[in-house]
Amino acid sequence: MELGLIGLGKMGGNMRERIRRAGHTVVGYDRNPDLADVSSLKDLVAALPAPRVVWVMVPAGGPTQDTVDELGELLEPDDEKHGAELAAKGIGFVDCGVSGGVWGLKNGYALMYGGKDEDIAKVQPVFDALKPEGDFGSVHAGKIGAGHFAKMVHNGIEYAMMQAYAEGWELLEAVDSVTDVREVFRSWQEGTVIRSWLLDLAVNALDSDEHLDKLKGYAADSGEGRWTVEAAIDNAVPLPAITASLFARFASRQDDSPQMKMIAALRNQFGGHAVENK
Amino acid sequence: MELGLIGLGKMGGNMRERIRRAGHTVVGYDRNPDLADVSSLKDLVAALPAPRVVWVMVPAGGPTQDTVDELGELLEPDDEKHGAELAAKGIGFVDCGVSGGVWGLKNGYALMYGGKDEDIAKVQPVFDALKPEGDFGSVHAGKIGAGHFAKMVHNGIEYAMMQAYAEGWELLEAVDSVTDVREVFRSWQEGTVIRSWLLDLAVNALDSDEHLDKLKGYAADSGEGRWTVEAAIDNAVPLPAITASLFARFASRQDDSPQMKMIAALRNQFGGHAVENK
Repeated sequence: MELGLIGLGKMGGNMRERIRRAGHTVVGYDRNPDLADVSSLKDLVAALPAPRVVWVMVPAGGPTQDTVDELGELLEPDDEKHGAELAAKGIGFVDCGVSGGVWGLKNGYALMYGGKDEDIAKVQPVFDALKPEGDFGSVHAGKIGAGHFAKMVHNGIEYAMMQAYAEGWELLEAVDSVTDVREVFRSWQEGTVIRSWLLDLAVNALDSDEHLDKLKGYAADSGEGRWTVEAAIDNAVPLPAITASLFARFASRQDDSPQMKMIAALRNQFGGHAVENK
Repeated sequence: MELGLIGLGKMGGNMRERIRRAGHTVVGYDRNPDLADVSSLKDLVAALPAPRVVWVMVPAGGPTQDTVDELGELLEPDDEKHGAELAAKGIGFVDCGVSGGVWGLKNGYALMYGGKDEDIAKVQPVFDALKPEGDFGSVHAGKIGAGHFAKMVHNGIEYAMMQAYAEGWELLEAVDSVTDVREVFRSWQEGTVIRSWLLDLAVNALDSDEHLDKLKGYAADSGEGRWTVEAAIDNAVPLPAITASLFARFASRQDDSPQMKMIAALRNQFGGHAVENK
């Protein structure tokens, strides 16, 4: 199979490598010419035989919209040339959420995709090349959009799981009786209810920095947590733990807390309680 | 090694079996005579050679206090008879948190223990019999109390992890585009960031009841979540996700929500908003 792959960053770059290792041809494009196989989307389209399959692996929002718009122009005349079947249904579209991060090249990428069966069948060889070995790791989740939605919820769950370990770790570090928190975490890797890949990664992190002294307590977010909470609001589904986890990250980025200034001010107003001034 | 084991319920009963399979002698006592090897704590003490090792595996609070009180009376005269060494330090005490639930007999029990090195050395053969195979699954967490504290935090983390999966599942079930939520969960078992043993159990549950239609949305708690939040309060450590998970369980047990009556009443008072009456 031949595939155009647009976006060769941390995810796309390794995905190109994994698909190639499975014996397929990948023509990669990226705005960064050092990463790209071709210098433009036009060249990418020209390098592929019709009917063309192009995977768009760029950030959500503007970059994806711009890429799809440009591809639409490039592919459209071509689609019209290549027969009634393709023209009748326009350009096929499959959405695919991809999990696996920097470990995906080695372990495979978990794939969640949405769309019509016939469109998915066309790209199935690429999905098979990317997915982990074994029975699991890929799913036709539903209609167009279902793949990205499932991946978004996956990341929302991830937020609360990470927060769960982080809270437990902070509490263990806070008490005198527990003298070796890192070894407690390590021991949890077998036989416990909370064993998981994220726990393994936590142990890796503690092995390189036992009390995380080198880090600042500052956590970014890439958007999936926000979108999960927004989807929950759209559907009136309560997500107390995921929302709390997202908001804890927001609080972590404040040099000073405006809301705690207000709490302190009000305690002072009604009770004369002492405040901490700058 | 010979061991007295008090409490032969879901945990203790299987632990007795696993320790016996490792070649040790276990004398078990339970208030339920159908489960017990001996009919009283006195008989249990009489059946063991000194210096005796007794594992108390009964519920926290009253049952543990009563058992330790009674054992103190039974063991004390014996300790005095058996030499200066034991008398000088009284009865040794090691606390041990045990994870593994009904799967522990097969997979081993994760153990977190606290106490003095010399006391732990005495019971190490039993710990070795109970722990999972492999390098992990047991830890000397610190001083007396550290084992139970680590196990308590383990369970607090478990609350928020369970809530994370539960929230994600509810959101996926709520949208039309995702047509096969169970298969999405199954696909997550390989290659994803959120793969875990709890995820495997969630898939098991969905395989026997795809939409959990047979269950009521009612979740009990056994105390560890409450104790974790209480410990966090004692140590002024913020646990937003774990606390939210515990409180979500409390809300699940209400036939009707008193606080939501108040919210509805206030919306009606200030804005004339409609209310739902019984």
